[in-house]
Amino acid sequence: IVCPAHADAKLEYTAQRAGDAERSLQRVWPRNECAREQVKVSMQVVDIATARRYAPDKMVKHPVFETEHLFCDVYCLEPGQEQAVHAHAGSDKIYILLEGRAVVTVGDEERELRPMEAVLAPAGLPHGIANRSKERAAALVFFAPKPQHG
Amino acid sequence: IVCPAHADAKLEYTAQRAGDAERSLQRVWPRNECAREQVKVSMQVVDIATARRYAPDKMVKHPVFETEHLFCDVYCLEPGQEQAVHAHAGSDKIYILLEGRAVVTVGDEERELRPMEAVLAPAGLPHGIANRSKERAAALVFFAPKPQHG
Repeated sequence: IVCPAHADAKLEYTAQRAGDAERSLQRVWPRNECAREQVKVSMQVVDIATARRYAPDKMVKHPVFETEHLFCDVYCLEPGQEQAVHAHAGSDKIYILLEGRAVVTVGDEERELRPMEAVLAPAGLPHGIANRSKERAAALVFFAPKPQHG
Repeated sequence: IVCPAHADAKLEYTAQRAGDAERSLQRVWPRNECAREQVKVSMQVVDIATARRYAPDKMVKHPVFETEHLFCDVYCLEPGQEQAVHAHAGSDKIYILLEGRAVVTVGDEERELRPMEAVLAPAGLPHGIANRSKERAAALVFFAPKPQHG
């Protein structure tokens, strides 16, 4: 993201998420301070309607907000892409479909979601999302707490 | 909510939230088990487009999901209603406007949000939301971690 105090600065951070390969992540300025000078910066407003990034090889987790407590991402799925079913011992996830159609699995059930339908994947239960349609799909995802790394 | 295993049962729980008066709260079945018989129940799908409840006297926090880690609510504001500016020492909040117009305050700044615009209120910063328009407003709100009570 662009720091409002340094409109020229497009800094990219590399972050490691539980279960993910190391990846480039546009990081939220922590606590409204600019990482470059620790100055106070403006409120960030993110337009969820346009926050998308698709990739031909796999689903993209497009970051919206990240704090020490939570992740908020838009998962962007081309037709045929999916997030494989997996589980987190101590973190809950919420999926809210934004566009298209996607099948969400929680436990041993699956449901096809329509836009603005929300599903909770409680901690410990296997869950995943798959785009089995012929159109792009996007889902808003909240995840908390952030897993702790030792 | 209606437990899918007991379609007749509309159980209401009373829950205490940090800073709130005790209030009646439709509670999510924890971990996909029915509170009545601890049987496994179906995935809950909540339609965020229609999850609304307004009250003439004050803003309503309409619950969507609640777990031990997080709250997900739709804040429903009649014209003139607001959530007064307040802060949480250790929890982050995300507002995503769903309909209408609302002014979100974070720190000493305020911004009028349009539908699908999102703002982060990081832990420790004063924040609030106000409907200064002549139409109803609704915002999806995520809050984590849940404050711990002694």
